[in-house]
Order: sequence, then C-alpha cells, then structure tokens
Amino acid sequence: MRLCSISIDGTPTWGVVAHDGTIVDARPIAGAPATLHDHIESPDPGVLGRLVDAAARGGGVDQADVVWLPPVRRPSKILGVAINNIIGQRIAHRPFANPAFFFKPSSALVGHGRPVVVRESYGVTHPEPELAVVIGRHTKEVSEADALAHVFGYTIINDVTSPGLKAEDSIELIAPPGSGGGAYGRLLSWRSNRDDDHARSNYLTYHARSKGTDTFGPIGPWIVTADEIPDPNVLGVNSFDGDTPVFVDSTANLLFPVQRVVSHASAYMTLLPGDIIHCGTSMKAADGSPYRGITDWDMRRVDGRPMRISIEGIGTLSNSVQWERDR
Amino acid sequence: MRLCSISIDGTPTWGVVAHDGTIVDARPIAGAPATLHDHIESPDPGVLGRLVDAAARGGGVDQADVVWLPPVRRPSKILGVAINNIIGQRIAHRPFANPAFFFKPSSALVGHGRPVVVRESYGVTHPEPELAVVIGRHTKEVSEADALAHVFGYTIINDVTSPGLKAEDSIELIAPPGSGGGAYGRLLSWRSNRDDDHARSNYLTYHARSKGTDTFGPIGPWIVTADEIPDPNVLGVNSFDGDTPVFVDSTANLLFPVQRVVSHASAYMTLLPGDIIHCGTSMKAADGSPYRGITDWDMRRVDGRPMRISIEGIGTLSNSVQWERDR
Repeated sequence: MRLCSISIDGTPTWGVVAHDGTIVDARPIAGAPATLHDHIESPDPGVLGRLVDAAARGGGVDQADVVWLPPVRRPSKILGVAINNIIGQRIAHRPFANPAFFFKPSSALVGHGRPVVVRESYGVTHPEPELAVVIGRHTKEVSEADALAHVFGYTIINDVTSPGLKAEDSIELIAPPGSGGGAYGRLLSWRSNRDDDHARSNYLTYHARSKGTDTFGPIGPWIVTADEIPDPNVLGVNSFDGDTPVFVDSTANLLFPVQRVVSHASAYMTLLPGDIIHCGTSMKAADGSPYRGITDWDMRRVDGRPMRISIEGIGTLSNSVQWERDR
Repeated sequence: MRLCSISIDGTPTWGVVAHDGTIVDARPIAGAPATLHDHIESPDPGVLGRLVDAAARGGGVDQADVVWLPPVRRPSKILGVAINNIIGQRIAHRPFANPAFFFKPSSALVGHGRPVVVRESYGVTHPEPELAVVIGRHTKEVSEADALAHVFGYTIINDVTSPGLKAEDSIELIAPPGSGGGAYGRLLSWRSNRDDDHARSNYLTYHARSKGTDTFGPIGPWIVTADEIPDPNVLGVNSFDGDTPVFVDSTANLLFPVQRVVSHASAYMTLLPGDIIHCGTSMKAADGSPYRGITDWDMRRVDGRPMRISIEGIGTLSNSVQWERDR
C-alpha cells in the first residue's frame, strides 16, 4: 500500500494511492486519524482494511491536483548514515566498523515536486539519492534479525548536502605549545581513525547546516508499506539530472544493510514511530567512470532540470532547484 | 516566571514554580493547555495572568514530590553550538567565523535528577555545562538585533558528549592513486579549514551517537521566561563534580553571543516554538589551570557524585551517572 501526506485545495490531509493512480483522501474514512503520522503511531486494523478497499476502488483525486507533503511531516528524528556505500568506503583510510550517523531536522523536509532552495553563498551543494526507512514501533536495542519487523515502510529521500557549508563548519584543533601530556593532549587524543602522523591535531566537522538547511530534505512521494518490500537490500536506485542518468546504483551496494543500520541506531537511540532513517547515498556512476564523485552533480549548474530519484518498488521523487542570490 | 514539566503521582503535567518553592500544577488553571510546549506555541494572556497569580499564592506540591521532565519534551529540533568558548577557540588552527551547529535528538532528553546512562564501551564521556535558549516564535532569518525577542526563555542543559563514540564515528578519506584532478579530488577539496599539508585527504566526524545517545541531554529543571533575563550574555555558569568546582565560567566567554547564535541558525533553519538552542560549553577551569580540558571530567570516574550545573538567574541542574556494563 502506498500512503501519502498531501494538501488538497489548501487543506493538509493524507491518503492512499489507488490502483488507478488517483489518491483517495483518508479524511472521510471511518475512524481515520488526522495524519499519516498518527496512523503510523497507532494503526487501526479497521482503518487499514478500509484503506485497502479504497485503494481497490480508486476514483480519487488526480495526482496533478495535489500538493505533496513529506509523508511524515514532523518525525521526532531523522537519522542519516554517512558514506554507507562500498564505493565511498574504498577511499577511506580505514573504513567505518559500524554505520556512522548524523541528523537532519524536520524543518528541512519538503514533499515531492517542491523546490530545493540553494543560495549562491552555499558553495558546492549536491543531491544524495537514498532509501529511507520509516520506523513503525517504539524500538530500543533491536537485533538485526528483528529490525525489519520494526519498519512501517519505505520511501525515497534526497539527502541534499552542501560541502560548501560543511567546509565553513569544519575546524582543526591543535595542541598548544607546552600542553604536551596535559588535558589538551587528552582532548585531542580521541582523534579520527588515522593514527600515523597527526598525533597532535584533531579535525572536527559539523553537519547541521550542510545537511539541515531548509528544503535540504525532499522526501516521498509516498511511503510503501513494508509488506510490499520483503528485502530492502536489493532495490535498484537510479538517479537522473533531468533525463540524463547520473547514478545507477542499488541498495545491494550499501556497506551496511538496512537491518544493520536500524539495529545499530537502536542500540544507542530510542526510535519512535514515524522516525526516519535514510540509509546512504548512491555513488555508482551511470557513465561507468570509477572516480565520478557525488559532488559532480553540482546543483548550481542544473539550470532548472529536475533531480529525479527512482527506487525499485517505491516510485520516483522529483524536485527542482531554486537558485537564489544572497540577500 | 519559572515553568516546568513534571510528573506528579505518575501523571505528566506542567506547572509554575511559586515564590515559596512549591510547584503549582497548571492542570486546574482555567484555559491551561495540556503541555508547557502547547503554552509556548500559543501562550494565552489569561492563562499567563493566572500562572502569575498561582506563583504568588504558592502552596503547591513540594519539589521533592515531583519527577522532573524535560521542560519541552519533544522539541522539533535541538541545536548545539560547537566549541563556542573563547578558551576552546584558542587551540583552533583557524577559529570558526560563525557558530557551527550540531543536533541532539529529543530522545536524548531527560529531566533534572534523572540518571545519565554511560556504558563501558562508550569510552571517555564527559559533561558540557551550557545555557539553553527556548525559542518562542516561528523564526526565519531574524537579525541579531531582533533575535532575543524570539526567545521564550532560558534553561540549563548538560550537553553530554562521548569522545569515545566520536572517535569510532570519524573517518579520513584519501584520494586514491590516479584520481588526481578527477571527481574524488573535488570531493576532497572542501576539506577542513586547514590548507597547508593535507591537500589530498579529508577528515569527517559524525556526532549523532556521541551527542545523541539516550540520556545524553539532561535539561531543566525549568524554563525561566525571557523577561527575567534581559541579557543572557552575562550569566555565571558554575559546574561541580559533587561539591568540587570544575568550571567557573560565564556566558560572557561565549565566542558568539546568544543573539548571534540564534540569528545565524535562523538564516538557514526555520526555528519553531519550543526548539532548543544550547549555546556552547563552559571551559574555564575552577582550579585556574590553563590546559584543563573538558574531557578531564570523565564520567566513568565520578563514582555516584552528581554532575551539578548552576546558571545565574536560572537555577541548578543536577544529574548522576548510571554506569552500565555492556550487554
């Protein structure tokens, strides 16, 4: 079942995508809660059955007549996984032993079809096409074996990232003269996982602006419920700059598979229904070049062409870039 | 006015701290919304007046008889500022030009008096005593001059941080042989703000676990409304390991003052009522040693002594450490 949050004639609601491609508004369905997030938090079996019936009946609103909203409009948290792709890890001095996470705020989310605003001063800013998991249950310390049973469904996210902003939010700390074995030495001693010639310095990068600026989280168009995706680790992920393929990748190329990602996150952070975990960017170049990087898809140069991300079994998320001069 | 979220006899509610130190439950107050977050989102002048009256009357519940909850239990986002202290910036190769942000998830928040759980495998984990701002209005691109008018109030946060977990979530990318001027060269070209001898490598640190693990966000005990704190940049911040002073610092030592922090965040991210921005750790050692680091306050060694943080004009946040073996 495909479930979405939408706005019809200016009124926010949610619905189910029917067999005929139309969207059946959930509001008139008996017992339906106010939002898709509410439904994810406490799905009512009766409502579920009536949604299935509505999807089979069809005859809803044409997709062209809705405004797409983020399927979950205000998740309690959105976790991303850094460089979770076998290609990306090839250039690591020492690959990650476990998935490494960052956060995106809900204020960054926008729906399918909404523009991503990029300002001149952001510098290089690029899309990252990713599978996103929507958590369905209160989840703490779930095993890999049980993790997928805690997933409500799957959707697509464009994890827009600005290396330009990231560079401004990076810093190197250096132990000052005379601090040798002192506290600053210890402050610096947890360094990155490189241990050769950087004994006295420490690099820190902060990602809030580069990952979390408003509109940096296009997501949708809808959630496909987990029953329709028995294995999320075999899905083709194809991305296009307008009509030109950029990445032809697959969730099979995630370094850490989805259940490992969910399990590891839950070992540290309680996951709540509606929480989003996006699993890692596509990196396999459509043109076969071994060193094509994600930063080559520079959003400053897309000239109105939409960024399109198709994931097998889910659908296509498309968003254009709205370029702005700084104020 | 001091406003808090609490649990009385197992029922979550919110209230006002009265002149006699007791807490007057807001539930029986006419027109009071269900939560303090609701009140922050749409404060009703009538309710405000009745809260003031209740605080003057007193005779509420004894503080010993409540369980303290995070004042805002599920803010849409929690932004922290990295190393926003003049001492910390002294060891930077090049200091930050602007506040650099990271996120904490709402799942990390715990109230005053609740334990912080630290496991053996986390490695070094330490407190960071900080002033926290609670946003009162929908805020986008606010000027420094107007920023404080968007603040609902102030509270205290212990920004618990685990350099041990951070080390595991750090990676260095290295341009592979033959990739010279190619895309990986560009991928790496946004490097940290050091530009001398690291032209072909790139360090990345991810902070979600080290800042966002469950219980890593003690906050409270209450919010002091902004009218009582005309200038948040002159507040003493004193921290204690049990009864021993650790840091004797002040918000006057923030590299970027509060209004600069709020303004800069809002230039990129829409801030919503109830959002939290914590402004940067204390670093000035109580014993006068120039190189005492924040990592010296190692939570693995506190042996049941509470971590106490007092901020002038607000109050004292106290939390103990609950040490756990890994499972």
